[in-house]
Amino acid sequence: MEKLLVKQLYRETEKFADKEVSISGWVRTLRSSKAFGFIEVNDGSFFKNVQVIFEETLENFKEVEKLSISSSITVIGNVVLTPEAKQPFEIKATKIVVEGESSSDYPLQKKRHTFEYLRTIAHLRPRSNAFSAVFRVRSLTAFAIHKFFQERGFVYTHTPIITGSDCEGAGEMFRVTTMDLNSIPKTEEGKIDYKQDFFGKETNLTVSGQLAAEAYALAFRNVYTFGPTFRAENSNTPRHAAEFWMIEPEIAFADLSDDMELAEDMVKYIINYVMENAPEEMEFFNSFVDKGLIERLTNVANSEFGKITYTEAVELLKKADKEFQYPVEWGCDLQTEHERYITEEVYKKPVFVTDYPKDIKAFYMRMNDDNKTVAATDLLVPGVGELIGGSQREERLDLLEKRIEELGLHKEDYWWYLELRKYGGTKHAGFGLGFERMIMYLTGMSNIRDVIPFPRTTGTAEF
Amino acid sequence: MEKLLVKQLYRETEKFADKEVSISGWVRTLRSSKAFGFIEVNDGSFFKNVQVIFEETLENFKEVEKLSISSSITVIGNVVLTPEAKQPFEIKATKIVVEGESSSDYPLQKKRHTFEYLRTIAHLRPRSNAFSAVFRVRSLTAFAIHKFFQERGFVYTHTPIITGSDCEGAGEMFRVTTMDLNSIPKTEEGKIDYKQDFFGKETNLTVSGQLAAEAYALAFRNVYTFGPTFRAENSNTPRHAAEFWMIEPEIAFADLSDDMELAEDMVKYIINYVMENAPEEMEFFNSFVDKGLIERLTNVANSEFGKITYTEAVELLKKADKEFQYPVEWGCDLQTEHERYITEEVYKKPVFVTDYPKDIKAFYMRMNDDNKTVAATDLLVPGVGELIGGSQREERLDLLEKRIEELGLHKEDYWWYLELRKYGGTKHAGFGLGFERMIMYLTGMSNIRDVIPFPRTTGTAEF
Repeated sequence: MEKLLVKQLYRETEKFADKEVSISGWVRTLRSSKAFGFIEVNDGSFFKNVQVIFEETLENFKEVEKLSISSSITVIGNVVLTPEAKQPFEIKATKIVVEGESSSDYPLQKKRHTFEYLRTIAHLRPRSNAFSAVFRVRSLTAFAIHKFFQERGFVYTHTPIITGSDCEGAGEMFRVTTMDLNSIPKTEEGKIDYKQDFFGKETNLTVSGQLAAEAYALAFRNVYTFGPTFRAENSNTPRHAAEFWMIEPEIAFADLSDDMELAEDMVKYIINYVMENAPEEMEFFNSFVDKGLIERLTNVANSEFGKITYTEAVELLKKADKEFQYPVEWGCDLQTEHERYITEEVYKKPVFVTDYPKDIKAFYMRMNDDNKTVAATDLLVPGVGELIGGSQREERLDLLEKRIEELGLHKEDYWWYLELRKYGGTKHAGFGLGFERMIMYLTGMSNIRDVIPFPRTTGTAEF
Repeated sequence: MEKLLVKQLYRETEKFADKEVSISGWVRTLRSSKAFGFIEVNDGSFFKNVQVIFEETLENFKEVEKLSISSSITVIGNVVLTPEAKQPFEIKATKIVVEGESSSDYPLQKKRHTFEYLRTIAHLRPRSNAFSAVFRVRSLTAFAIHKFFQERGFVYTHTPIITGSDCEGAGEMFRVTTMDLNSIPKTEEGKIDYKQDFFGKETNLTVSGQLAAEAYALAFRNVYTFGPTFRAENSNTPRHAAEFWMIEPEIAFADLSDDMELAEDMVKYIINYVMENAPEEMEFFNSFVDKGLIERLTNVANSEFGKITYTEAVELLKKADKEFQYPVEWGCDLQTEHERYITEEVYKKPVFVTDYPKDIKAFYMRMNDDNKTVAATDLLVPGVGELIGGSQREERLDLLEKRIEELGLHKEDYWWYLELRKYGGTKHAGFGLGFERMIMYLTGMSNIRDVIPFPRTTGTAEF
């Protein structure tokens, strides 16, 4: 008798027809009459449950028929094909071992719960259909990303989480310290004496691994990061979390157009991988979370992404027969309403907006010949808006130093970053993909709190 | 003409014979005479360099022959097979474009540098042979681990980095805060007012994702984590870093023996994957870093791991014809010298030590029937000592609560962890693999600072 995962049973049903098998999992539903009963068992390896039939001949029939939802059991029985029924097969139990009973006050009873409520039981919510699907897709997406880059020979680079500088320049940071907050050590001048802190200096949680990734791209040519990043921003929105994961590829001997090609290939690869490897989950999202999801993703996977410059986009928005909450002028940052108009109403597919005004972009982006715009790009996708932000990096030492000075930053803080330009620098580019934003895009889930196992947001670090 | 990675040229040399190709990379060495010159170019995609020949017919011969080490160039030329020479082929350049010149004070000149010195130029050291090999192997190892677990249907779970509790119980933690350290908010009683901190409570950096992973294993059956973990321990050793990555699989409906089987399969899978996908790197480590490395790893991949109980191990050590620095008594923790004696001198292969005294192990480990030992295991390997630590988890609610009380911990802090036992708990187990320790084991590198791109250790958070 074979111990199986439910996934194996579903994927190779024929092979196990009329065979005796053993599965283990949790009771999702149970109904019984005097002579027999049905249990829907889910073992977490697969979205769907297995239907188990048990009869009163079962040694512990009375124990089994009273099992609470979420009790864990091992079922030994025969696989019976049921081509007429909703499910392709069922297991006729010859033995059911109760591994662990659940209590009758189990909070995830059959009735539908709000996502808000389920967040308060984040340790149990992955046992529900929706979150079982979300987190299986999250896992598959992560692997798809690794697979995509590894197949292309990219070197996965772990950039530091704790940073000794705040020169990543992308937002508010969390301080990391081992100092006693009840008695912060002070210098003679009365300033905080960071020399006595763990690292002998101020340290924070990273907001981006890009600068470090550039160092590695200038050694390995093609690299990517995939790790947690942090923002200490007090923004209580459905799209922001204080802790989230980012993917940041960085490619040398490459310009903005190579960068966009890579981003387009990656997005398509991820969509195809997830649709292929999680069809049941995607069907569920398409039916219950976001109708039209599969059609939208299929379109994206099959379309050639559009390209438009920021300047053209501004013209287009100004001419638009549409009232925007925020008016558009050349030089201003595009708002989500603008981005969605461009991708959803004009292009009806993903579109790269390129060459943004230098003043609304970061210091490291490569100056264009017009001296007003930089070689940056945002990828806008229908339903979400900005999915990816990238740029070609400024490889010209003199221009980079000039930008750093202009912005009032300190060259000394960037000594090693500048040296990358001094010792055989070359054109290079990269982009950042917010992992959770990608998951939201793939699943149609609309709150970032519902795609992170135990989310950290303003005021919340439970579990 | 095809733009190629050097890896493609080496892996499919025949295909490109006599073809015109284009490669880009950095000058590793350059020597020239009046009429011609040789450049060794490395593009980071492959361990080995490509030899490029250029002749005075080259348009910019004078520029090229003066290039400093580490200048970046693009070479267009013909692939010429050289079966008589050390390298299998070379490129006869028809054109060399200088992408970025390096400065003559480039610190990584041809002479050999100490690893200590190279740590001070962590942004450049991946351009050296040794670190190019280390970090390519690091990337491949990470992917091997993902591949291993994904092939078996494990769900990759991102457990939180910022934790709202210090109940993970595995060492000193870093505090995470956005409070102004110059004026820490206080309550009326004069205590720190964490309500005013970002999360409204004390928060720290995680030391382990295990407890959260257990919640997910009890939904998905088989899960794994792979993320950064932190120890604020003031230990300045070659084996400890403040920030490192850990892999923590957790499996439900599984006991300690399933756990050991999984660990053994994983270690063998990783070794095989890396030896197969990085033969040049492994050859380099075997020749220049750790002679005998390949033989040792091959033995491990082909051996059946040993098993011995802690109690038997103590007996064996007591009888050993060897003087230990630390004497052994039942109840004490095994030191590295003991571990290495067992695995290197007695077993001469990896060995699982099982069933440790409860008093030297964590509260969540499953009590054995003897009431003195717990179902824990450490995997000891030759050359390193402990590589993996794991255990079956206590699934019996009453016994777990008793252990928490005995150790003076607070049940309230573990409310959700205890609920996992209440709502359909089942036997489950897991282990932790320190990622960097695995890399050290695979490469023979002896200092953890040399297997992390930008290491964080006591007093050091540079770059």
